[in-house]
Amino acid sequence: MPTPSSTSDVVVVGGGIVGLAVAWRAATAGLSVTVLDPAPGDGATHAAAGMLAAVSEADFGERELARLNLASAARWPAFAADLAVATGHDVPLLRAGSLAVAYDADDLALLRRVLALHREWGLASAEVPVADARRREPYLGPRLAGAAVVEGDLAVNPRATHAALAHALGDAVVRRTAVRLERDAAGRAVAVHDDAGSRHAAGAVVLATGAGTTSALLDGVPEVRVPVRPVKGVTLRLDAGPELPLEHVVRGTVQGRPVYVVPRGAGTGAGPGSGPGHREIVVGATSEERPDDRRAEAGGVFALLRDARALVPGIDEAALVDVTPRARPATPDNLPLVGATAVPGLLAAVGHGRNGVLLAPLTADAVVAALTGAPPPDDTHDALAAADPRRFAPATTEGALP
Amino acid sequence: MPTPSSTSDVVVVGGGIVGLAVAWRAATAGLSVTVLDPAPGDGATHAAAGMLAAVSEADFGERELARLNLASAARWPAFAADLAVATGHDVPLLRAGSLAVAYDADDLALLRRVLALHREWGLASAEVPVADARRREPYLGPRLAGAAVVEGDLAVNPRATHAALAHALGDAVVRRTAVRLERDAAGRAVAVHDDAGSRHAAGAVVLATGAGTTSALLDGVPEVRVPVRPVKGVTLRLDAGPELPLEHVVRGTVQGRPVYVVPRGAGTGAGPGSGPGHREIVVGATSEERPDDRRAEAGGVFALLRDARALVPGIDEAALVDVTPRARPATPDNLPLVGATAVPGLLAAVGHGRNGVLLAPLTADAVVAALTGAPPPDDTHDALAAADPRRFAPATTEGALP
Repeated sequence: MPTPSSTSDVVVVGGGIVGLAVAWRAATAGLSVTVLDPAPGDGATHAAAGMLAAVSEADFGERELARLNLASAARWPAFAADLAVATGHDVPLLRAGSLAVAYDADDLALLRRVLALHREWGLASAEVPVADARRREPYLGPRLAGAAVVEGDLAVNPRATHAALAHALGDAVVRRTAVRLERDAAGRAVAVHDDAGSRHAAGAVVLATGAGTTSALLDGVPEVRVPVRPVKGVTLRLDAGPELPLEHVVRGTVQGRPVYVVPRGAGTGAGPGSGPGHREIVVGATSEERPDDRRAEAGGVFALLRDARALVPGIDEAALVDVTPRARPATPDNLPLVGATAVPGLLAAVGHGRNGVLLAPLTADAVVAALTGAPPPDDTHDALAAADPRRFAPATTEGALP
Repeated sequence: MPTPSSTSDVVVVGGGIVGLAVAWRAATAGLSVTVLDPAPGDGATHAAAGMLAAVSEADFGERELARLNLASAARWPAFAADLAVATGHDVPLLRAGSLAVAYDADDLALLRRVLALHREWGLASAEVPVADARRREPYLGPRLAGAAVVEGDLAVNPRATHAALAHALGDAVVRRTAVRLERDAAGRAVAVHDDAGSRHAAGAVVLATGAGTTSALLDGVPEVRVPVRPVKGVTLRLDAGPELPLEHVVRGTVQGRPVYVVPRGAGTGAGPGSGPGHREIVVGATSEERPDDRRAEAGGVFALLRDARALVPGIDEAALVDVTPRARPATPDNLPLVGATAVPGLLAAVGHGRNGVLLAPLTADAVVAALTGAPPPDDTHDALAAADPRRFAPATTEGALP
């Protein structure tokens, strides 16, 4: 039985990688924390591949998002190192870099536009002859129209990172659903009630509900709007034997469809008897504007396998061990909601779309700065302003109240 | 705790659908039975689609096998009805018949050769215009070179059938691994020892080990050879919503590769919350001469989905809920080993390849006839002779003994 009720400096609602990162950084800043989640890490975190690709084909015209992504990517090595020291868990970063590849001529045109963006953002990437790319990564497919090397692109294992965060937080993670936000007479958020009837008093409440619904929590809170919609994605986990020692993240488009193949390195297979001879490879991802029904449509799985084997044919021999359909928390402008809301004591760390793993360290720093009254991280002031949760607050809030 | 030791008329080693069918028919014939299996039904039975197709493209030149298949297919309705009455379980038979389809011109040539075989074997099948086939089954794909209707082809749900058999047998099924066959001074099989050290005394022992190894059991039994090798197959289980009310088994070849799509009817989805709106569809099967490593290679899953959606494109919208790799127990001549072995008191019911579900009722009748001294089923005398386990016995057995 968890503690029936609690009093903390911070109650985080939602125990995905974003919620736990916020809670852990808050705890290391000296705040007492409680996290409420009936199934921590079982949302988008469970499906995420862990690519920390700050600029991708999805980013055209998304200057603020790219700036946030870059700032958070820069934080990941220290975040992972701190977490490893704090927990004794291995929080490995894949540092071999990415190969961005194009399947046909149209894909190559798209790749070159992405490379132009990389230059604009100061990222170290360069188109290389396909033969050069194949020398770096011999497991690339035989038919590719073009390739580029993206140095410094990192990848992490979201499940392993989440497990380390959960370990670091220990009993602070309470496996309960938050059902009601309690406000005091002045309107300040002061507690969260869970589905066991317990009250969790809080100096501040952080919404980190991912693609989960916030309707119950925000029922009597017209000042705050969290316009998150689910965008379903499916990732596949393969267990490759030693015969497919893929070292680089391989991503690209196949006839316009984005696909990635993310290796984890040796000893990471998800299969039974997973040992040194096993290597986990994550293939992703579909993207569908559908409810979070946790169904992996056969057609989507088919398309993922088809496109991934066009990039890395050797996956044919790897075992399919996991098919993971989850919803990403998308917002109307593809930016997350990070920081103070219109309600005193209520903060947001939600709506990270496909960038939740990447943005977890920066989100944690920004929210902890807001909680402690410290200035927000220097390098991201403008981008964080664009992520202000209050941009979605109804304009007529006060007039609408009785 | 299971009974530590037992004494039965029959000890069946192996609790797949063949072993349980033998045990159940033996029990209904008045014999006391014990079945030993650490994981009953978790072998080939777990993967099987349940098509009862007595003649398929694999059967060219396999006259005896086709005869066994036909005799057993004829037994299935009564077998299922008896089992349903005995247990109160639903043991549904899909009776809508099969549509055998051809994807391209070469596939059509193959289909016509199969139809010629059907005529030879007296099966009611007929080539029909593709448009006619599509009228019967509107979910057929847009590009098909030919089609045939195979009336009377049945399909069953192997997992449901196995569950009913296990229910009928109750405590007679002991979840233990058989590790040693005990013989008396005259060489007769008299007991089986399990991995808990228990002794199961038996009037007769039936080997129904499927693709499992028999080496431990037959270690000191040079007179009996069970040349079963694993042929790995993968099947997929989809959960289709009400939007894909497929009614017929659709099978065929796509550019020479056999594939089938087997619907179960409403209320059979395997997904969470499976209810009236859910329909299980089984897609199969790969066929690989590989060890039984229970790995579903991504390339095989890809090929199954590709070929199945060529026949029934609507599966794209169904959820992929289960990927099941298992080994089939294949023999050198593709015939099972059914009946008495060279060792008194030791019978075989093993090596059924891809036909284990289909052949379960006939195998059970044949083995029970051998156990009780009744004459074997009339309609299958020659075919059962071809399945005589002693055809693989080493010719020099006696000379080789010290």
